[in-house]
Amino acid sequence: MQTSSDSTKPLREIEGYWSVEALKGWVKEVFLRIGCSEDHARMAAALLVAADLKGIDSHGVARLPGYVRLWRKGRINPDPQWRWTQRMSAVAVLDADGALGLVAGQVAMEKAVELAGRYGTAQVLVRNSNHFGIAAEHALVAAGRGMVGWAMTNASPLVSPLGSNKRILGTNPLCYAFPSAGHHPPWVLDMATSAASNGKLELAAAAGQAIPLGWATDQAGHETNSPGALQVGGALLPLGSTSEGGVHKGYGLGALVDLWSGLLSGAAFGPWVPPFVDFLEPATGGPGPGIGHAFGALAIEALMDNEVYRQRMERWSQVFHDAGLVLHGMPEWEQRSKRLVEGIPYTKEGLKALVDLGDSMDLLAPGQ
Amino acid sequence: MQTSSDSTKPLREIEGYWSVEALKGWVKEVFLRIGCSEDHARMAAALLVAADLKGIDSHGVARLPGYVRLWRKGRINPDPQWRWTQRMSAVAVLDADGALGLVAGQVAMEKAVELAGRYGTAQVLVRNSNHFGIAAEHALVAAGRGMVGWAMTNASPLVSPLGSNKRILGTNPLCYAFPSAGHHPPWVLDMATSAASNGKLELAAAAGQAIPLGWATDQAGHETNSPGALQVGGALLPLGSTSEGGVHKGYGLGALVDLWSGLLSGAAFGPWVPPFVDFLEPATGGPGPGIGHAFGALAIEALMDNEVYRQRMERWSQVFHDAGLVLHGMPEWEQRSKRLVEGIPYTKEGLKALVDLGDSMDLLAPGQ
Repeated sequence: MQTSSDSTKPLREIEGYWSVEALKGWVKEVFLRIGCSEDHARMAAALLVAADLKGIDSHGVARLPGYVRLWRKGRINPDPQWRWTQRMSAVAVLDADGALGLVAGQVAMEKAVELAGRYGTAQVLVRNSNHFGIAAEHALVAAGRGMVGWAMTNASPLVSPLGSNKRILGTNPLCYAFPSAGHHPPWVLDMATSAASNGKLELAAAAGQAIPLGWATDQAGHETNSPGALQVGGALLPLGSTSEGGVHKGYGLGALVDLWSGLLSGAAFGPWVPPFVDFLEPATGGPGPGIGHAFGALAIEALMDNEVYRQRMERWSQVFHDAGLVLHGMPEWEQRSKRLVEGIPYTKEGLKALVDLGDSMDLLAPGQ
Repeated sequence: MQTSSDSTKPLREIEGYWSVEALKGWVKEVFLRIGCSEDHARMAAALLVAADLKGIDSHGVARLPGYVRLWRKGRINPDPQWRWTQRMSAVAVLDADGALGLVAGQVAMEKAVELAGRYGTAQVLVRNSNHFGIAAEHALVAAGRGMVGWAMTNASPLVSPLGSNKRILGTNPLCYAFPSAGHHPPWVLDMATSAASNGKLELAAAAGQAIPLGWATDQAGHETNSPGALQVGGALLPLGSTSEGGVHKGYGLGALVDLWSGLLSGAAFGPWVPPFVDFLEPATGGPGPGIGHAFGALAIEALMDNEVYRQRMERWSQVFHDAGLVLHGMPEWEQRSKRLVEGIPYTKEGLKALVDLGDSMDLLAPGQ
C-alpha cells in the first residue's frame, strides 16, 4: 500500500498502488506535454483520477494512453478556442473546437451553474467535443453548489436495439446529481442506457466467462453469450434487453440522450458519432462536428430554502436506506473514502501501459 | 363502427364504438357535474379522450369512474385555487390545491412554455395534485410550440427494487417530447420506470396467463410468474428486472422521478405518495401534500433556427427508420389517426361501467 509519503518514489518502483497526489501530478504532466494549458491539464487530470478514486477504473487513468493516441492523430485539440453562442438568457451552446471532453464538460457545467444562479435553471449544450470521462464528475459541480445537476453525452455507435442489426446508438450515459443532506453523500445516478457497458464484456472476455443473455447480440442480431460479440460485428443491447423486459424503454433513453446532446447541440448523432478509439476512423458526411454533450442545473433556492431541502432529502434518504436499498452514489463515495487513504490499486498490465506512455513522452516519473 | 354523425344516439345504444366528439362531450359533462369549471372540464375530458385515441386505454375514459369516486371521498378538489410561488425567473412551483392532475398538468405546462419562451428554458414543479393522465399529453403542449417538453410524476408505491420487499416507489413515468419535423410526428418517449405497468398484469390476469419473470415479485421478494402478485403483497420490479439486467438503473430512474417531482416540488414522496384508488387511504404523516409532478421546456429557437432543427430531426428520424426501428411516438400517432376516423372501441364491461356512472349522476347520454 502506498500513501502520499511515497510520492517521491519513481513510478516504476511502485507496485500495485499509486498515491493519489503522485498520480494526479503525473497525469497533469502528460496533458501539459500534449499542449494543454496549466488549467486544462489540471482539470483533465483531476477528472481521470476522480474516476479511479471512485472505482470506475474503466473511465480513469487507464484511458490516458487512448487520449494521447487520439491527440497524436490530430483528433483532440489541446489548445481549443471556446466559441459560445447564446440566443436566450438561460441557454448556451459551446462549440468546443475539438477539445478534450474532460475539459469542455467542466467549462460547460460552470456556465450552467452561473446561468442557473441567475435564472434558477439553465441548459448548456456542447458540440465538437470528445469523450468527457465520467458524467458524475460534471453533474457534481452543480450539486456542490446547491443545485441539481445533469450531464449526458452521446458516444460512438455500439448499441443496436432489437429489430435492427445496425449499431446506431452509443452507450449514451445520463447522469443526475442532487446536493447532499446530513451525513448522506450527494445522490448520483450515473448510468449507461445500454443493459451493460462494453467494459463488462471486456472483463468477462479476460476471465474467459460467458456473458448473460440480454447484454449483446451477434452479427445476425440474435442474443448471444459470447463476450467477444462486439469484435465479430455484434452489438450491445439497450437497458431492458428484450421486448418483454422493456427494451423499447432503454432504446428510448439512448435515443433521448442522442437527441439532446447530439442533435440539439449541433454535433454528430446516431451512427455518425466519432469513435473514441484511434484505430477506427470517424464516419464522413455526418450531421455535425464531434461528440455532443448536454448539461444543466436547477437551483434548490429557486424551489425552497436550503434547510427545507436538507430536511426533506435526509428523510427521503433514510426511508430508502431503511428499506435495505443502496442509495445511488453511495458505493462510489465509500470507495473514494477508502482509496483516498489507501491509494489506488492497478493491475500490472495497467501500470505497464502507464509507464510505457511516460517513457514514450520522455516523462520522468514523480520524484525522478 | 360509429362516426361523429352518431353523436345524437344515446350511449346505451352504441355498442363497441363511441365517436370521439360524443365521448368528449359526455366526459366533459361528468366533470361539470362534479363541480369543475367549463375550462377545467374541457381540458380534463380532452386529456382522457386523447389517451383512448392513442390506444393507451388504461389512462383514458376507463379511469373516469375512479376520478369520480375520489371526488366523492373529498380527495379531488374540482374548484382549486392555484397558488404559485416564483423565487427565480425561469422556475415556478404550483400548489394545485388538490386539483385534478389532468388540469394542473396542463396549467403547469402552459407556465413552462411561457417562461421558456422568455428565458429559453424553464422548470415548473407541482405539489398537492392528483393523477395527471398520460404524461405525453402534457409534454406535447411544449412540442406543439416549438420546444422540447418533459413531464414526470410520482405515483403511489407499487414498485420494490430487488433487495427490499417494501413497495417504495410508484411506476413513476417520465416523458420527453420533441417537435415534429417533415412527415414525422413528434418524437415522444413516455415510459413507466418499472419493467411493466400494473395494467399489463391486469391484462394477463384477465386472460388467465402467467407473466414473464422480471415483472413482479411475490410477498417474499422473489420473482414470480403470477399476474396477481400485487393482490397478495407482491410488487412490481423496476426496469432492468434483475441485477444482471441492470435493475439498479430502473430503480435509479424511478427514484429520480420521485426526487424531482415529489421531493423538489414539496409534495409527498416515496412510500407516502397517496394512492389513486379510493379504497386505499392515503398514508398519514407524510412529507408533503398530494402527488408531485415536474414539467419543463427548452425552446428550439434558443439553440438553432427552426429550419435547421427540422432538417436535423428529419435526418435523425430517417436513419433510425431506415435501420428498421420504430420511432417513439409513431405507434400512438398511427393509432390516433385510425381512431379519429373509426371511433374508439370499448369492451362491454368498459361501456357498462361508463353507462352506470352516467346513471349514478342522472346524466343523460348524448342526444337524449
